[in-house]
Amino acid sequence: MEFVENKVGRMVPTYIEGIGALKPFNGIFDTDIEGRKHSSLLSKATPSDQKLLNSIGEAIEKTGLRDGMTISFHHHLRNGDHVLMMVVEEIARMGIKDITICASSLTNAHEGLVAHIKSGVVTGLHTSGLRGNIAKEITTNCILPKPVIFRTHGGRARAIESGDVKIDVAFIAASCCDDMGNMNGKLGKSAFGAMGYPMVDAQYADKVVAITDNLVPYPAYPISIPQTLVDYVVVVEEIGDPALISAGATRVTNNPVELLIAEYASDVLIQSGLVKEGFSFQAGSGGASLAVAKYLRDYMKANNIVGGFASGGATSYLVELLEEGLFRTLLDTQTFDAKAATSFIKNENHIEMSASMYANPHNKGCVANKLDIMILSATEVDVNYNVNVMTASTGVIMGAQGGHPDTAAGAKLTVVVAPLMRKRIPIVVDEVTTIVTPGETVDVVVTERGIAVNPKNTELLAKLKAMNLPVMTIEELRDLAESFTGKPEKVEFGDKIVGIIEYRDGTVMDVIRNVIK
Amino acid sequence: MEFVENKVGRMVPTYIEGIGALKPFNGIFDTDIEGRKHSSLLSKATPSDQKLLNSIGEAIEKTGLRDGMTISFHHHLRNGDHVLMMVVEEIARMGIKDITICASSLTNAHEGLVAHIKSGVVTGLHTSGLRGNIAKEITTNCILPKPVIFRTHGGRARAIESGDVKIDVAFIAASCCDDMGNMNGKLGKSAFGAMGYPMVDAQYADKVVAITDNLVPYPAYPISIPQTLVDYVVVVEEIGDPALISAGATRVTNNPVELLIAEYASDVLIQSGLVKEGFSFQAGSGGASLAVAKYLRDYMKANNIVGGFASGGATSYLVELLEEGLFRTLLDTQTFDAKAATSFIKNENHIEMSASMYANPHNKGCVANKLDIMILSATEVDVNYNVNVMTASTGVIMGAQGGHPDTAAGAKLTVVVAPLMRKRIPIVVDEVTTIVTPGETVDVVVTERGIAVNPKNTELLAKLKAMNLPVMTIEELRDLAESFTGKPEKVEFGDKIVGIIEYRDGTVMDVIRNVIK
Repeated sequence: MEFVENKVGRMVPTYIEGIGALKPFNGIFDTDIEGRKHSSLLSKATPSDQKLLNSIGEAIEKTGLRDGMTISFHHHLRNGDHVLMMVVEEIARMGIKDITICASSLTNAHEGLVAHIKSGVVTGLHTSGLRGNIAKEITTNCILPKPVIFRTHGGRARAIESGDVKIDVAFIAASCCDDMGNMNGKLGKSAFGAMGYPMVDAQYADKVVAITDNLVPYPAYPISIPQTLVDYVVVVEEIGDPALISAGATRVTNNPVELLIAEYASDVLIQSGLVKEGFSFQAGSGGASLAVAKYLRDYMKANNIVGGFASGGATSYLVELLEEGLFRTLLDTQTFDAKAATSFIKNENHIEMSASMYANPHNKGCVANKLDIMILSATEVDVNYNVNVMTASTGVIMGAQGGHPDTAAGAKLTVVVAPLMRKRIPIVVDEVTTIVTPGETVDVVVTERGIAVNPKNTELLAKLKAMNLPVMTIEELRDLAESFTGKPEKVEFGDKIVGIIEYRDGTVMDVIRNVIK
Repeated sequence: MEFVENKVGRMVPTYIEGIGALKPFNGIFDTDIEGRKHSSLLSKATPSDQKLLNSIGEAIEKTGLRDGMTISFHHHLRNGDHVLMMVVEEIARMGIKDITICASSLTNAHEGLVAHIKSGVVTGLHTSGLRGNIAKEITTNCILPKPVIFRTHGGRARAIESGDVKIDVAFIAASCCDDMGNMNGKLGKSAFGAMGYPMVDAQYADKVVAITDNLVPYPAYPISIPQTLVDYVVVVEEIGDPALISAGATRVTNNPVELLIAEYASDVLIQSGLVKEGFSFQAGSGGASLAVAKYLRDYMKANNIVGGFASGGATSYLVELLEEGLFRTLLDTQTFDAKAATSFIKNENHIEMSASMYANPHNKGCVANKLDIMILSATEVDVNYNVNVMTASTGVIMGAQGGHPDTAAGAKLTVVVAPLMRKRIPIVVDEVTTIVTPGETVDVVVTERGIAVNPKNTELLAKLKAMNLPVMTIEELRDLAESFTGKPEKVEFGDKIVGIIEYRDGTVMDVIRNVIK
């Protein structure tokens, strides 16, 4: 295997058997693009065609799914998803092998994949993230023959549109669907909200199967994915467990460290001058990140500021800002909690968007590019402002790229919020275990002990220094962290590449190697 | 030029210089399909990109529009459209020649094209229809070097998706648009309703320019066409003349002949057994066609029948049925009048659909295929039930394919309503001047004097005969018409092909030849 050093200093392979040629990361907007998008098969439909099938097995047969193919799923049903495992179990039962799963992400609901990987039914995984036992088995026992390809939400849309990933069959869970395949995730007992991820799959996959537990009279509406893109419809008893699909309203943290970080972060935002009429805002998941909205709200109210849009990952936090009139609109690719799902049903200014519209760098303009402010969490951040949200200090995979690199690249101001340490493990370090988001897209790192400003932001640095805020260099933050925790122990990695961190433009940002126990 | 006889007995060319190879019509669902859809160019966008340009001229430059290219427009602004002529005039000013215009249709607003055709700026026209002076100049003076390609609404979507037509630049008029190109036709002073036609263009054109007179703060919503598909945005003073865009509510006819035809037609529908819970319905434009809804309403109310959907071309007629709860939904690709436009704004069950979803035979299923009942007008209908809606008895082009062949092919029951004669010209004839909709897709012809049932519908024929309805053979209707009017004079056609009637599947149904004055 040949390796080259990429722009963030990581040695990355140029070719991997079973995956193909790889390009090293070369700067955030520096990959040249040419040619045309991928496209789906031409097809023909007559009035007598029936899309309704009796079972997932029948759908697998009719689509011609066979050994070596790539199938796709979305994770809008989160930990409650039944669909991915139902399909994979049927595939296994039918004796089909060597399947690559291209999922928008994988959750606890998919632990059962371990057995199907071990038996050779599943030999490839593309996902935003991985946690739990699958992640552990892959990182430490190397059960998957090919490395997992980790993509950002925008990068997944890009890969599908460009044909880097060719989906043979997309299986799309829908909480509301008709017999022609018009569908949404808004209505029904298993409602999950926006359908941003499979909106892309449906358009580019050769075959599309809708799987629903709520077949409604034709036409189902609103229409998130139209009948023109759907080959078959299968009705099952339950596409998911409603209790696990929707996690109740996200609660504001009462952790004093997180609240302090959030308060500092909101001070940074305000000083940046970007919090003004018509501005746009997104906050990733994580207590401190979400809590920023609370402080921002007070400031916006006091100063009569109304933002243009908030985007996400729609949480109850953002919905409250929308409902109070503090943002005109909420652009939503994935609805996180029950309150957000209710908002999505009732508010026309709570707008569904595809993952491509959200964050794909290779279309004609994504929402991430219009962001003024992005608040992001971090598992680790290093002295070059590179961020890791993928691997634990043990080296084991336990996170997801999500929209992290997408929004960091797009936003005018990207603020990473993180505690200086977690359970005596330093968060600000010399070098992150895995680079997910490159430092050139991170503007500020806010911890409870100090704030570091990426030196490229000279103006903001001066402003913050003039305030009564604990501004430090990133090296000072690292030293401070280490003064409490000591130098972290090095993880012992093996030689095998178990994961590829693909940047949103399709280049390789980093690789994850197996961990020696 | 070589000719072959197609399935409806017309001699059609197999090749035309400047257009290419042509396939003869071979039966309504008998064209084999293979390969992949066309696709747009891959592109790249960064946060600093600006889509807002200062003028149409700048947009023409930036898109790289040059001699020989194909540009597209939609006709949702009807007789009020300013956009097509603004763009063509700018193209002419810039010295660009040999342009093909692929419009969803052309109206009175485009009479100015005559000069640009004569000067060689425009050398190709693809449209649903043509009327007035352009039509006359093309039919009698042969001003266009290549025949006009007439497509159905579904066929246009098909041609664009398949790549039969490659649109270099789509110019899309939007009554509400933001600086990234998110747009709709729902809001703004020039609101026109659904945007069904350009939804297709935007997805497949290499470059897309939004032209608006109502630039709103980002994000514009609801989003009919998303920013991901739009390259540039140009603001102009007026995209159209509001008085001509929206024609006020369509009025119910009070012509006694049309009312009688409508009453007979509704009797046919009721006898067919298709007017039942959950049924679907569409009526084309034309007095008798629209009046059917009035009679249908009374029957539905009296029998407590609620239909699943009405579709169109949304008119005030259909909107009234929706608002009275007689149909659950209205699927709308083009909003015809002011009342329908208001409904589109306020009713969530008045649903926008693309022209592909409406009627494209080569996607995974269109709405036309789900229609139970379709009511259609006719300029002529012949003893083989073939329908002409394109050429007058003078041989001059004066109509549009619209969704006529699409819905006739899709619907379970297609009823053509027409007076037996118009101004002493017979409507039921031996052979129509131009075949637009093949007779095998027409079930019944209803005139004020008699009803003819296509002999393939033996069951319906028996039912209608059992009623007190004036059932005749189509030949008897023709004879009756001729007994009033005499045999129609033959038009003297020349040798030049000025128009091609492309069936929805891309095959040639008929050709239109020049008329010798």
